[in-house]
Amino acid sequence: MPDGKTMILAYDQGFEHGPRDFLEHPESANFEYILDVARRGGFTGLVVHAGLAEKYANEIANSGTPLILKLNGKSELYTEEDPYSPQLYSVEDAIALGASAVGYTVYSGSKYEGEMHREFSRIIREAHARGILAIGWMYPRGKSIFDRKSASITLRMALEEQEQSTSAIDETRSIVAYGARIGLELGADMVKVKYTGSPESFRWVVQSAYPAMVAMSGGPLTRTDQEFLSRVEEVLAAGAAGVAVGRNVWQRRDPFTISQKIHQLIFGA
Amino acid sequence: MPDGKTMILAYDQGFEHGPRDFLEHPESANFEYILDVARRGGFTGLVVHAGLAEKYANEIANSGTPLILKLNGKSELYTEEDPYSPQLYSVEDAIALGASAVGYTVYSGSKYEGEMHREFSRIIREAHARGILAIGWMYPRGKSIFDRKSASITLRMALEEQEQSTSAIDETRSIVAYGARIGLELGADMVKVKYTGSPESFRWVVQSAYPAMVAMSGGPLTRTDQEFLSRVEEVLAAGAAGVAVGRNVWQRRDPFTISQKIHQLIFGA
Amino acid sequence: MPDGKTMILAYDQGFEHGPRDFLEHPESANFEYILDVARRGGFTGLVVHAGLAEKYANEIANSGTPLILKLNGKSELYTEEDPYSPQLYSVEDAIALGASAVGYTVYSGSKYEGEMHREFSRIIREAHARGILAIGWMYPRGKSIFDRKSASITLRMALEEQEQSTSAIDETRSIVAYGARIGLELGADMVKVKYTGSPESFRWVVQSAYPAMVAMSGGPLTRTDQEFLSRVEEVLAAGAAGVAVGRNVWQRRDPFTISQKIHQLIFGA
Amino acid sequence: MPDGKTMILAYDQGFEHGPRDFLEHPESANFEYILDVARRGGFTGLVVHAGLAEKYANEIANSGTPLILKLNGKSELYTEEDPYSPQLYSVEDAIALGASAVGYTVYSGSKYEGEMHREFSRIIREAHARGILAIGWMYPRGKSIFDRKSASITLRMALEEQEQSTSAIDETRSIVAYGARIGLELGADMVKVKYTGSPESFRWVVQSAYPAMVAMSGGPLTRTDQEFLSRVEEVLAAGAAGVAVGRNVWQRRDPFTISQKIHQLIFGA
Amino acid sequence: MPDGKTMILAYDQGFEHGPRDFLEHPESANFEYILDVARRGGFTGLVVHAGLAEKYANEIANSGTPLILKLNGKSELYTEEDPYSPQLYSVEDAIALGASAVGYTVYSGSKYEGEMHREFSRIIREAHARGILAIGWMYPRGKSIFDRKSASITLRMALEEQEQSTSAIDETRSIVAYGARIGLELGADMVKVKYTGSPESFRWVVQSAYPAMVAMSGGPLTRTDQEFLSRVEEVLAAGAAGVAVGRNVWQRRDPFTISQKIHQLIFGA
Repeated sequence: MPDGKTMILAYDQGFEHGPRDFLEHPESANFEYILDVARRGGFTGLVVHAGLAEKYANEIANSGTPLILKLNGKSELYTEEDPYSPQLYSVEDAIALGASAVGYTVYSGSKYEGEMHREFSRIIREAHARGILAIGWMYPRGKSIFDRKSASITLRMALEEQEQSTSAIDETRSIVAYGARIGLELGADMVKVKYTGSPESFRWVVQSAYPAMVAMSGGPLTRTDQEFLSRVEEVLAAGAAGVAVGRNVWQRRDPFTISQKIHQLIFGA
Repeated sequence: MPDGKTMILAYDQGFEHGPRDFLEHPESANFEYILDVARRGGFTGLVVHAGLAEKYANEIANSGTPLILKLNGKSELYTEEDPYSPQLYSVEDAIALGASAVGYTVYSGSKYEGEMHREFSRIIREAHARGILAIGWMYPRGKSIFDRKSASITLRMALEEQEQSTSAIDETRSIVAYGARIGLELGADMVKVKYTGSPESFRWVVQSAYPAMVAMSGGPLTRTDQEFLSRVEEVLAAGAAGVAVGRNVWQRRDPFTISQKIHQLIFGA
Repeated sequence: MPDGKTMILAYDQGFEHGPRDFLEHPESANFEYILDVARRGGFTGLVVHAGLAEKYANEIANSGTPLILKLNGKSELYTEEDPYSPQLYSVEDAIALGASAVGYTVYSGSKYEGEMHREFSRIIREAHARGILAIGWMYPRGKSIFDRKSASITLRMALEEQEQSTSAIDETRSIVAYGARIGLELGADMVKVKYTGSPESFRWVVQSAYPAMVAMSGGPLTRTDQEFLSRVEEVLAAGAAGVAVGRNVWQRRDPFTISQKIHQLIFGA
Repeated sequence: MPDGKTMILAYDQGFEHGPRDFLEHPESANFEYILDVARRGGFTGLVVHAGLAEKYANEIANSGTPLILKLNGKSELYTEEDPYSPQLYSVEDAIALGASAVGYTVYSGSKYEGEMHREFSRIIREAHARGILAIGWMYPRGKSIFDRKSASITLRMALEEQEQSTSAIDETRSIVAYGARIGLELGADMVKVKYTGSPESFRWVVQSAYPAMVAMSGGPLTRTDQEFLSRVEEVLAAGAAGVAVGRNVWQRRDPFTISQKIHQLIFGA
Repeated sequence: MPDGKTMILAYDQGFEHGPRDFLEHPESANFEYILDVARRGGFTGLVVHAGLAEKYANEIANSGTPLILKLNGKSELYTEEDPYSPQLYSVEDAIALGASAVGYTVYSGSKYEGEMHREFSRIIREAHARGILAIGWMYPRGKSIFDRKSASITLRMALEEQEQSTSAIDETRSIVAYGARIGLELGADMVKVKYTGSPESFRWVVQSAYPAMVAMSGGPLTRTDQEFLSRVEEVLAAGAAGVAVGRNVWQRRDPFTISQKIHQLIFGA
């Protein structure tokens, strides 16, 4: 990661959301197209599951884009209140597939948070022992988070913050910062988190995760390019290392132009 | 698989449905008869559980039909809303029994999807490390799928598709394509899926699984030979690699003639 | 097993039912007496748990009766609708105790059927790798089986069969044959099943398990010797390999005479 | 165990009941005092958890009292209907701590009986492989046992026995004998069981466990010394090997005199 | 631990409570500041999770403050009645990170107490085998503890004690002493427990844990320095080895002065 900056292309949505995410721009269903976007867009990492990593091992290696193997995943076909995303591949698998880093989603707040904290902790230890990076998708979620009579002080603070903004509960400063902190405590090198809506609140997220790096999660397609680019500017101003973005790039008719603009904001070139 | 085409004879129904599937044509209860159908019908693979694979190891080897060991299974004696089909044999067992490929059923959408995604992922890694193929029976199922107030966009799309057709919910384009995609993401070489009712919708399934191969699941006995053969034609037109069929062959009085016709459609000879 | 015939003395009831089964004939609580019955009765196998197998290892070896170690068990003190009988000893243990075969109970239809299918499958693989036989006590059971609105075709067939007979649901042709078939599919050398009430129906059980051997489970003490002996004749006529009997032998005042008669029926001498 | 007799001092109550058991006689909270009672009382075994066994390893070795490491335990802070007492230490740990025997509590009848049967079975195998004894605390317990509409014949018998006595359900002949029998079937060298209230009923317990040895569990402090000593006489008359007693010794002001009297009854000196 | 005394700085709150604990004194979010407090305050141990231990390994080693790796943790985002805090790192990890001791929280009374007792027991065995200390955060908790109709004698005693004081149920003598005792029974070198409100009651805690050392848990920020210092004096008078304190140090504007005063009370200098 040159100069502590990062610009990651996420392509694990085929697992998490299914092929419906590709309907906006059907070429995006084809990995060969995605790899071209990653390469030409100057991305410093590309997130995929093991199936594509294995079938396109040579093409990825030749593209020069560092591979980030996403080690866990779940489908939206099962819609539970307390999510669990099980580890599907090992750090050993990631290294065999040529990965420079591994990613893992942690739903702290779910009744399965213990399993995920444990799995991610072991992944971090193994990744560092093998000399690759570990990135946490830190997304607090689950039934507890929506409990309006919660015994948790953090949750009561988040509810107050929510009332003073238009954010969802899992986009409040308290919740996002907590998720980021857990990533730090477990040993992540970088945490991927939701945007909190303002540079001021996001700065607390960055401080809570320090010295781990913070990347903003791209999220669903915004109405305009500028709407997304403004967010990028704000998180960078707050001290973030960059972004990990998928749909806001490859659901656009022209993923190359927006990639270039994001690159300009993060790397100044 | 010559020319990326496939024609598989499935014979795991004795576990999944029990002996009732053999009542239509009682000779089908006897594996020696089935092996004869596989050989004379020119099938490029025969799916069985470990019991028959072991007891008839010599006969299978002599028949020249490649063995596909089905690694998981469950009975219909237990009727749960959220199915789980546990792994019963290892890739190591499959190789010891002479298998060229392994099969595994994945019920994405079940509350146990995590266990199955994990088991199938490990099976794929092991199979590829040992040089054999991994085939996924990708059948989204479970209570979530019938949730008419689902929070899942895919499921809401599937409900709309269902209203415009006569398909069951797990035969809609959105659901079948999602199951197929998960097979690709996990690393399957081939996915076995239900037919979606039209070549247009099935083409999206094939694109979602690309570059994994797609085989249509045969399903229950159709009223006429032609009804089944038309489906085969349609999925081939949509880009499928072929079929994996059981009851539509060995529940017929004459399994040899229909096998010949299927072979003609897939291989042109 | 001389000539594909079998006559097994079951003595795992102290675990499954407790000492109450010994009250009918208190000498039966003492294993030394049982071993005498096994030896003098000409049984070709004796089923025990590891405690007795270990404490009487020398006596069993000297008796000449082959030892069948029962690898799982549960008590009737816990009365659940969906039974699970956990594996308690390994194939390795069985061999160390001098066993020629291992036994395992499978309650297909229970919500724990997956655990039992998996355990039994592994036991079969290990037993065969070590050169001993694997016998399945195939007893479909569980809440699903009594579901009168079941989605399972097998269960609807079983309910119809039950209405036309005096059998319990787990003694119908469809249910018993399905249990037997699962034993075959998993790789059992022999299946122990309940009697279905007629030679015609039991023949379908034998065909469904073919080429695995079938032994009728003895069940509770019948009113007369002849009632039990008639059943033995009927299952032999249907193609069964023999019986695995406990209470119908050692709950009788004179276990030796009935053993002799059973032996005569099975072995003709 | 000289002449098949046994007299064990139990001191695992600090875990099972907590410090409240020491309030009766506060010196009993101090292990150094307990070890003195064990040594001077002529006990043939002393039951402790790993913490005390490790911290006082030298003192125990010098005392000459054989160490019995209790391998499982649970607190009374969690009050569930279906108890599970998890294994906390291994047979390997026991041997490293100098133990001559291991103990394990089995709550047959609990919905977790399977886990405990399995753990205890493995412990027995390992203990015997390493040349030490395995003792089962066989205490049937759990919600099923109090089910007045139980489908279990043993439980219906126990309810009848209870109506004809003042015993609790888990002190009836049927229940205690069943627990003892499970200990035998699994392979225990000795079983520790509750008293059934009469020598006649306890004789059936001894017969059901034969040839495993039977030790009566001491239970809560009796009003008088004689009340406890009479029980000891009765179980010895019924064929028991002795007692395993804690509170009835160290909750008394003078634990030495009662120990001497118990010793006299068991060993005749 | 010089002279059996201990003064530990706890900094695992970022995981347990989240960044909200740092809002009182924002510098406390930064580990570099905390390490300065530990060093200048003369603390004999510093508790952290693996993330900070790894990222600041050199700085910690250079500070001279012994590292205590906290091996388990959970977030307050999930608010369950019966808590479970899963083990996240191994003793092996702790040693690789340079730790002199490991810590583990045990919620006895939770329905998951068995998992925690088991994990902590294994950790103790491994720590002692590797020559480092094991410290138990012994915090009885869970739904059972608030059951006013409890079948547990300890809980009924605790309810009586609570009525005669202003303590919470998990700060009563009976509950705290029980937690401490479990730490001893499992083999902890030191137990960290809540204050019971008086030196008399705390003396029973110390006796119940003897010969394991006892450290008082600091708890939430007190209104005045003196309020906290008085507690320290009282537990020392009751025989405690010292304190393990976090918020009462680093949530104060001046953490250095209070540290000096605590040090004076414990070490007399």
